Amino acid sequence: MLRVDLNCDMGESFGMYKLGNDEEMMKYITSANIACGYHGGDPHVMRNTVELAKEYGVSIGAHPGFPDLLGFGRRNMTSTLSEIKDYVTYQMGALREFATALGMKLQHCKPHGALYMLAMEDEKVARVILEAIAEVNQNTIVFAMNHSAVVEVGEKMGIRVAKEVYSDREHTATGSIILTRKGESIQDLEKTADRVVRMVKEGKVVAHTGEDVSLKAETICIHGDTPGAPLIAKAIVKALKAENIEIAPIHDVLNVRV
Amino acid sequence: MLRVDLNCDMGESFGMYKLGNDEEMMKYITSANIACGYHGGDPHVMRNTVELAKEYGVSIGAHPGFPDLLGFGRRNMTSTLSEIKDYVTYQMGALREFATALGMKLQHCKPHGALYMLAMEDEKVARVILEAIAEVNQNTIVFAMNHSAVVEVGEKMGIRVAKEVYSDREHTATGSIILTRKGESIQDLEKTADRVVRMVKEGKVVAHTGEDVSLKAETICIHGDTPGAPLIAKAIVKALKAENIEIAPIHDVLNVRV
Amino acid sequence: MLRVDLNCDMGESFGMYKLGNDEEMMKYITSANIACGYHGGDPHVMRNTVELAKEYGVSIGAHPGFPDLLGFGRRNMTSTLSEIKDYVTYQMGALREFATALGMKLQHCKPHGALYMLAMEDEKVARVILEAIAEVNQNTIVFAMNHSAVVEVGEKMGIRVAKEVYSDREHTATGSIILTRKGESIQDLEKTADRVVRMVKEGKVVAHTGEDVSLKAETICIHGDTPGAPLIAKAIVKALKAENIEIAPIHDVLNVRV
Amino acid sequence: MLRVDLNCDMGESFGMYKLGNDEEMMKYITSANIACGYHGGDPHVMRNTVELAKEYGVSIGAHPGFPDLLGFGRRNMTSTLSEIKDYVTYQMGALREFATALGMKLQHCKPHGALYMLAMEDEKVARVILEAIAEVNQNTIVFAMNHSAVVEVGEKMGIRVAKEVYSDREHTATGSIILTRKGESIQDLEKTADRVVRMVKEGKVVAHTGEDVSLKAETICIHGDTPGAPLIAKAIVKALKAENIEIAPIHDVLNVRV
Repeated sequence: MLRVDLNCDMGESFGMYKLGNDEEMMKYITSANIACGYHGGDPHVMRNTVELAKEYGVSIGAHPGFPDLLGFGRRNMTSTLSEIKDYVTYQMGALREFATALGMKLQHCKPHGALYMLAMEDEKVARVILEAIAEVNQNTIVFAMNHSAVVEVGEKMGIRVAKEVYSDREHTATGSIILTRKGESIQDLEKTADRVVRMVKEGKVVAHTGEDVSLKAETICIHGDTPGAPLIAKAIVKALKAENIEIAPIHDVLNVRV
Repeated sequence: MLRVDLNCDMGESFGMYKLGNDEEMMKYITSANIACGYHGGDPHVMRNTVELAKEYGVSIGAHPGFPDLLGFGRRNMTSTLSEIKDYVTYQMGALREFATALGMKLQHCKPHGALYMLAMEDEKVARVILEAIAEVNQNTIVFAMNHSAVVEVGEKMGIRVAKEVYSDREHTATGSIILTRKGESIQDLEKTADRVVRMVKEGKVVAHTGEDVSLKAETICIHGDTPGAPLIAKAIVKALKAENIEIAPIHDVLNVRV
Repeated sequence: MLRVDLNCDMGESFGMYKLGNDEEMMKYITSANIACGYHGGDPHVMRNTVELAKEYGVSIGAHPGFPDLLGFGRRNMTSTLSEIKDYVTYQMGALREFATALGMKLQHCKPHGALYMLAMEDEKVARVILEAIAEVNQNTIVFAMNHSAVVEVGEKMGIRVAKEVYSDREHTATGSIILTRKGESIQDLEKTADRVVRMVKEGKVVAHTGEDVSLKAETICIHGDTPGAPLIAKAIVKALKAENIEIAPIHDVLNVRV
Repeated sequence: MLRVDLNCDMGESFGMYKLGNDEEMMKYITSANIACGYHGGDPHVMRNTVELAKEYGVSIGAHPGFPDLLGFGRRNMTSTLSEIKDYVTYQMGALREFATALGMKLQHCKPHGALYMLAMEDEKVARVILEAIAEVNQNTIVFAMNHSAVVEVGEKMGIRVAKEVYSDREHTATGSIILTRKGESIQDLEKTADRVVRMVKEGKVVAHTGEDVSLKAETICIHGDTPGAPLIAKAIVKALKAENIEIAPIHDVLNVRV
């Protein structure tokens, strides 16, 4: 039986500022990437988000970013490798403490925004992020694009990397994500759901340039701030179930013990 | 044989900004209170400080403060109890991750600045800080003033509180610290050392108002930013040894297993 | 002919985080209190908000707060008087530069949140805020509660203080605002509008304790984040016009040249 | 008679954290570049630094940087052009307010760190920074490297650019600065002073690659955090005076009215 994980970025509110539709999305996803206070999130939001995930039976992971709240972690900062490593350790630890306090474990880590993109392209950055993770728990799963530096380095280091595809963004011919910020996201629910099913079943998607791309869909990202995100999630869940594809947290998909 | 712990705030540098004389102080102390990025410290400094403590065989603890770098955590912020609890969880977790990464454990927690003073006076604040600590590890030791709210609440909750005295600050008639920021600290090395020895041996110190105060000296705080701090530390160590008082990390003093 | 100013807090978004309904509110108000990047707002938001005010012919003022984005400036921070003064100078200057760049002038200053409340109660705080303002432009108008420290000190210093009442919050028997954060705001539009008209025409409002309070309504605050704020604003404007009360920016109400 | 300006970065302390040797440097320089709270500096430090400049008769300018205190503004952040423009407006305005409050005027603007380097290389960035400046005061002088984008764009826009050379850093064959952070700065006082004199008199310096570079020395930068900075400044002043070169603020050197 095919299995796939649905993931979503969560806990990105900050103080008075609310972002996303966390509780609604928790109903559909199996893995929550929780912001850790650098690009978004704050201690109060983190505790609440871990509690929410627990309530809905959703597995959790850290979603560390650059220390740039003003830019929401979407701007590259020319940091040293050791700075990047320490940012990941710091944020992952902050979230792990809330998890421990609430009787949960960190299943995975998915870098955020500019840090995610940088890790995909730069082997040295990929390595220090993976080191930060492995120093504390070798079994933590890392989310990454197909054919990315993280996949390569992760294999060398013996760390499990979950290959991620995007439900609501286009892919390039190499399986990378096309970043859009202007809401030019995929809108047709049925089409979106069919596309996701094809990625999981056939390992294929039509790239933005028109040709078929081969990729592995171990976890499917749904952006919580895409307009209508819960509806997209619902449609995907329905379509996957109709095809007898099991939706399960990534540690079950990969048979890793957290 | 009498035993006492020497503690010092550490890792309060931030980016380009250097503070304190950490490596020099590590030679004398047995417990380091490491800043966690809110009032001071940053991820890079935290890793370096944990490494330094490890190198010098010094036990480590979290030194969480209010999120007020500009005020160095010395300004009270009228936060809710749940905000305070979450600030402590967040910071403690961030430090614990570096400790784990480097093969160390968190021995203790000492709130910083305005958060420390607030916890000493306000039972509700004391309680949420102790809860944040106990949720993750019931054996973590908390540093607190003699006769403070933290001592009281800690006893009720079954959490070990280390009674702290100050080598370089005056005490009130109730054993509280007199805050000074203008360097009006005690300067005479020999007098300082004698005073510390008396606190440890007799449980007594002359208050700033002239009378003798009874207090318990389980851990002695030396402020690293007091002018001549390493000399003060050296003099204290010498005087304690001369009296056959063993200097040991607080978990040894209190016979707690971290 | 009676005249009154309508004011609203504006420009409190930050980076990705959106707050309030600025453009909608601009249609009704005559004075905008623009956040300056400390409790909310950022440089980009500030420029946009000044542009928006210009487009709608709304006068602008600075809305400085404590440096506490996480607490949205609603938490008191035990700052020194010179710290407070410098915070006001800094934020007012940042906003003034955008105003100058866009051909506008700062008409007024209204401290935000905890800083506002502190200034109302504490004469020394009131004084340093007024000094910060007067050092740069003696004609800048300050918004303050009836019977507050700012009113008293402003009179002594020869600075014009606009007496402010609240359309959507209760008043105490001394004309102070009752802070509510839980949306227990006044909901009935007609009742709200009648209440505002009475404050302007008769200088009276029923306090939350039932008795009539005398106060002067030179500027009426409408909170932009009150649910239905634009509808409240619209109802107030309609009711004031029906009574032939002119709605004008505070410098016109007070005949002050900016 | 030859004239040249000596400039130094100032006011880069933050809260408890002290940086540089501002008062000592004020004795030698004629233009102070004052940090504005983004990469360093805070409102209190800004007021004190403006006061200090006034006391020593030193002209002042804004020293705006990226919003990255942790990286001291030395890391490039991939910001949009309008973000950069607004950062400059914000910071310049904040400083201008302190200047106005203390009866001074902003003479110049020198971007800091990564923002400086970016402006030198990227015409679009140069343009928005110059626009931010010109929107408020067309007479503000901008500091820039010889042969940089800022020089080119400034000429087109009719904004005066002061050509800057470095007393304590090497130059490339095109007159750019060689960044060093490890204190590999020029140490020999006499050699440094001779080199500066030659730049001012002959418009030439030996590049780090050995050949002679032509450049114009209208303002000489002395880094205040270079070890022995006040001694370097003193030696330069002495050497310039011995050659009858007048040391004057940049607006006098360029005959611009602030």
